[in-house]
This record gives sequence, C-alpha cells and structure tokens, in this order.
Amino acid sequence: MLQNFIIALDWLGLAVFSITGALVASRKRMDIVGFALLGSVTGIGGGTIRDVLLGNQPIFWIKQPAYLITCVSIASATFFFAHILQHRYRYLLWLDAIGLALFAVTGAGNAYAHGAGSTISIAMGIATATFGGIIRDILGGESPVILRQEIYITAALIGATVFVALMDIGAPQDVAVALGFIAALALRSAGIRWGLTLPRYQPKSGDQPN
Amino acid sequence: MLQNFIIALDWLGLAVFSITGALVASRKRMDIVGFALLGSVTGIGGGTIRDVLLGNQPIFWIKQPAYLITCVSIASATFFFAHILQHRYRYLLWLDAIGLALFAVTGAGNAYAHGAGSTISIAMGIATATFGGIIRDILGGESPVILRQEIYITAALIGATVFVALMDIGAPQDVAVALGFIAALALRSAGIRWGLTLPRYQPKSGDQPN
Amino acid sequence: MLQNFIIALDWLGLAVFSITGALVASRKRMDIVGFALLGSVTGIGGGTIRDVLLGNQPIFWIKQPAYLITCVSIASATFFFAHILQHRYRYLLWLDAIGLALFAVTGAGNAYAHGAGSTISIAMGIATATFGGIIRDILGGESPVILRQEIYITAALIGATVFVALMDIGAPQDVAVALGFIAALALRSAGIRWGLTLPRYQPKSGDQPN
Repeated sequence: MLQNFIIALDWLGLAVFSITGALVASRKRMDIVGFALLGSVTGIGGGTIRDVLLGNQPIFWIKQPAYLITCVSIASATFFFAHILQHRYRYLLWLDAIGLALFAVTGAGNAYAHGAGSTISIAMGIATATFGGIIRDILGGESPVILRQEIYITAALIGATVFVALMDIGAPQDVAVALGFIAALALRSAGIRWGLTLPRYQPKSGDQPN
Repeated sequence: MLQNFIIALDWLGLAVFSITGALVASRKRMDIVGFALLGSVTGIGGGTIRDVLLGNQPIFWIKQPAYLITCVSIASATFFFAHILQHRYRYLLWLDAIGLALFAVTGAGNAYAHGAGSTISIAMGIATATFGGIIRDILGGESPVILRQEIYITAALIGATVFVALMDIGAPQDVAVALGFIAALALRSAGIRWGLTLPRYQPKSGDQPN
Repeated sequence: MLQNFIIALDWLGLAVFSITGALVASRKRMDIVGFALLGSVTGIGGGTIRDVLLGNQPIFWIKQPAYLITCVSIASATFFFAHILQHRYRYLLWLDAIGLALFAVTGAGNAYAHGAGSTISIAMGIATATFGGIIRDILGGESPVILRQEIYITAALIGATVFVALMDIGAPQDVAVALGFIAALALRSAGIRWGLTLPRYQPKSGDQPN
C-alpha cells in the first residue's frame, strides 16, 4: 500500500524533474539528444544517488528501464513544446518545487520502507530531492538552485521530517505522505512567491568577503 | 572472445582519455601529480560510474590496479611531452572523440555481456563514453564538452545503438564492435571537422533568454 | 587497535572538514540548513566515495548515523560562531589541510585494513582526502582547491604512501599513522605558508593558451 502510493508519486516526481532538465537544455539551446540526456540525468539522478548510498541493487531504473524510457520520452517531447512557454525559468522553478516536494517524501519513504531509521530516512529524502537538480545545474552550467537565497533545502528537510515523524507515531501512511508533500511544497512555494527565507549568515561589520 | 576484444579496446579508450585529462591539466599548468590525478579520473571515470550503476563489484580498476597504474603512467608522461603539441585543445578534442567512440561500444558491450537488456546497454555505453570527460571538465574548470554545439552525445548514442542492434540480430561480435566504433567516430569527427549538428532548440521570436 | 586509532582520527577529520564546508556556506551567506548540508557533504563526502568504490556496504554513516549527526551539529554551530573569525578563508585553508592529512592516512588505512593492496590503499587515501573538498567547492561555487598552485594532492599522496610503506615493512601501526599524518600536514603547510610547489607544467615559448 505505502509502496504503491509512493511509487506513483515517484513517477510523477521523475516526470516533473525530467522537464526541468529539458528546460535547462532549452536555455542552453542543446539538440534533442542533449534534452534527453539532461532530462534523464535530472529525473533519475536523485533516486540513483539514493539507491547507490543505500546499496539498493539493482538500481531502480536498471531493474525497470521504463523509468529511463519515460524520462527520455518526456524530455524529448519538451524539445518540441518548450518554445510555447514564455518564461521558461519560472516554469522550471515551479516544476522543480513540485519535484522537490514529491522526492523529499518518496525518497524518505523508500528508505523508511527498507528499514532505515529516522535520521537516515530524512537524509535520503533530502538527497533524493536535491541531487537531481544539483547534477542538472552543474552539467548545464547553471548557478546551482541550492545556492539561491529563498527556502529550498529547508523545504525538503521539513517535508521529509513531517513524513517520518507521522510514520513514527503511527499515522496512516497516505496521511503522512500527503502532509509531508504539502509541507514541503508550501514552504518552497512561499520561497518562490514571497521570497521567504531563513535568516542568512551575517558576517560582522567591517568583515572582508573572505 | 567478445570479452577479450572489448577489453583490448577498453584499455585503448582508457589510455586516450588519460591523455585528454592530462591535456586539461596542462591547460591549467598543474604539477605532475595534478596530471596524474586528472588523467586517472578521466581514464577510469566513465567505467567507474558504469560499474557502480551496474553493481559490478569489485570495480574494474580495484580488481586490477594495472588499469589505474596505466592511467597514472600515461598522464605523468604527458607532463613531459605535452609541450611538443602546438595546439593542445585540438588534440584534446580528437583524442576525446576516439575515447568517446571506444567507450560507447565497450561500455555497452560490458553491460550486454553481463546480461543487461538493450536499453540499459545503450545507456551504459553513453554513460561510460561521456562521464569521464564530464568529470574531467568539471574538476578542471573547463566548459563541459557536452555543452558544445556539434554532435557529441549523439555520436555515443548511435555507436552504442549500432553495436547493440547488431548483437541483437546475431551479427558476429567483432563486426558489431567495429561498426559501432566507426559509426560513433565518424559522427563525432564530422562534428569536429565540419561542425555537423543536429537541429538545436530554437526559442520563439521575441523570447527572453530565460 | 589500528582500527580504533584510525576511527578516532577519522572522526577528527570529519569534524574539521564539516567546518570547512560550513565556512564555504558562510562565504555564500547561506542559511543554517545550507550550512548543515554543505558541512555534511564535505565531512562525509570523501569517505562516502571510498565506501562506494570499495563496495563497503552499508556506507559508514548509514551504519552509524552518529557520523552524520555530528557533521550536521558542527556545521550548524558554525553558523553562529563563524562571524568571530576575521579571515575565514585562511581558517578554511588550514582546517582543510588538517582534514586532508587525516583522511589521507585514515582513507588508506581503511582500505588497507580491508585487505586492499598498496596501490589501491594509496588511491583510496587520496580519494578520501580530496573528494570531500572537491564536492564542497563545486556545490559552493568556489574555485576548486585542487587547482591551486601550491602542493595539495601531492601532500595526500605522500601521506598515504608513507603510511602504506611503513605498514608494508611491518612498522608499528601507530607509528605508520603518525608519520603519514605528519608528512602530509608538513607538505601542505609548507604549501600554504611558503607557497611550496612542485614544478608546474610550462608550455613552450610562443605557445597559445590552448
């Protein structure tokens, strides 16, 4: 049950992240194969890191190549449709937010279902949610999203923590998934929409930049 | 048989990629140990990613340290000879092309020989062919080769696909390897020599860069 | 015995590298969660690469989450105290040097204790010592420390080699660890303090930058 629900959301996160990878490819005016590569790496990147770290072999998309084929298909299709979007970076940010919220919960849920404790489950939620985007930005030569000022990693942290805490106290599984997702998406949305930030590090006055 | 032929070409690809890593080190005026590190990471990087993803343990160069020693030796030797080359970046591009074509086939062949299906074999060909160069460019602070306009990832894709398709229809193994290699090298050569490209993404007129 | 001594130094290296990750976060004026992420990735990054390459499953911080919790705690604390330091980049370099020397020995020692040969043990020392910092610099958008002119990778190489050579000739284990650490730290310190370098690659006169 938990597994099925999480798997469905995992597919959704994968699709959404594939599009963000393709949108970065569009910003770099790559060809369709570049779209496919960058979309796939972004879509499956976070889950791949998670599986390698947890020692889950075979890795999910090697066991089921349909994951990879889906990423390639979606990213390739984006090659033909991305020009419809006027403000691609804005779409990229919002799709990235949805993917972040989905993967924060499914990444934590995947580890939790395999018997990992609370700390490691939360860490896997954060890793799954952020590493696809990190790889996308590094390969695409973009400034990494995690360096942006508004709330980002924190949203993944809170989403994964809400999910794990609810599971630990015995809440119904779909409630834990839904509330974790909502918490992460709400926080990140507030970051994009209203610039919500945590207090940032302040050097003392007269401090040099380094 | 297939294994022996592929292993020989794998050594060649490793040697060629080691030199490209060393040439990037020469562009950054690193010392001989920097040459050795960047050469090794480039030479064994793609195959390492492949083995980690496929769960091949121990990883090839840990099972046979001669791979690593070869990379270190070649990259170190390049420290003394690179100054002979007048146009190092040009040599880098061509050696990278040869390595790309070799690893596209041997990466796919390695996965294929371990029982992976067509999709995963092709994906492993692309990953093995491209990731060594990606790591090289990121560590060396170079603009990633995969972002260049001419055909690059496509060459690896076609090379791996030709090899896998010929194997699937029962062609002799050395024919599949040779034609896959030739296809990849021909495409990438046309990219370098004549600027051959696939159609690149075109934003609509009046579109903003983002 | 060897294991216990190495584990203790491993904790110290992890703590020190966590602070360097947090200091990079401070240079980018990230929030406290950014400090925790960058500090953790830097502290556990090198050892994670080592465990993945060696096939050590479960990875050390997944088996013992206390490692991860320590990194998060230290990096978070740095958020509140980093402003005390006037010259953060200088502290970053020196702490990085201590972490480099510690991990060069403990990384080699970890592989050695698991039965790896001399070549692989030395390679794992270098990988453990350098990859945490490489990941830190790439994620933090800093120019990679490995590209700096003064002795860096060489210090890790010598430290790991001294340790492995002494173990191979049957020296007492604590002596091998101590001399390896001292050799690496002395070399890197001379690099920072007096700009000690190996001869760097010299293009021939009239050579173009590429």
